[in-house]
Amino acid sequence: MLAPLTTEQVPTYNVTFEPRCRNNWHIHHAQKGGGQMLICVYGRGWVQLEGEPAHELKGGEVFNIPPNVKHWHGAAKDSWFQHLSLEVPGEGTSNEWLEPVTDEVYDKLP
Amino acid sequence: MLAPLTTEQVPTYNVTFEPRCRNNWHIHHAQKGGGQMLICVYGRGWVQLEGEPAHELKGGEVFNIPPNVKHWHGAAKDSWFQHLSLEVPGEGTSNEWLEPVTDEVYDKLP
Repeated sequence: MLAPLTTEQVPTYNVTFEPRCRNNWHIHHAQKGGGQMLICVYGRGWVQLEGEPAHELKGGEVFNIPPNVKHWHGAAKDSWFQHLSLEVPGEGTSNEWLEPVTDEVYDKLP
Repeated sequence: MLAPLTTEQVPTYNVTFEPRCRNNWHIHHAQKGGGQMLICVYGRGWVQLEGEPAHELKGGEVFNIPPNVKHWHGAAKDSWFQHLSLEVPGEGTSNEWLEPVTDEVYDKLP
């Protein structure tokens, strides 16, 4: 569930995932600036940049997603997960949505 | 109390005010972009732009402070107040700190 907090300045959404819910792999493209910031406000979840181990996120923690890097984020198996999502301003920005995170990949996470 | 959450992308701080605590009037100058976003995470407080009535803020609420506008923010009389403070990226940015918010002004607020 996606609740907009503000569309001015730095567009910010409050995003809620039920357990096991995650988005597809995706890329925030930008020529300058851009990318995304996640501020976890509740529960436990994951964010993974392609080629790196998944990073666990809990309440109060922040993760900086660089522009032009394929990634996904979502809840842990056993917990709801809520994060603020901030669109970092940039030039030439666009979003590219890719394939789902398979159960094979997801089920390996604790 | 000011706790940095991230200094990358959109610099973000978690700021806590005890009851009656408020900052001085100040201005976030910018030639392009800039300004500040407040995301209230706990308690009750105030933000006031010069020439406007004070605006009450509670948990989950967001306030967009435009660049180049004199303002202050802080806690209510009877409540702690915590907000995330986000420095909106811009060009030619600088902060100008001005006079305190007098008790005469502050004590009129509920």
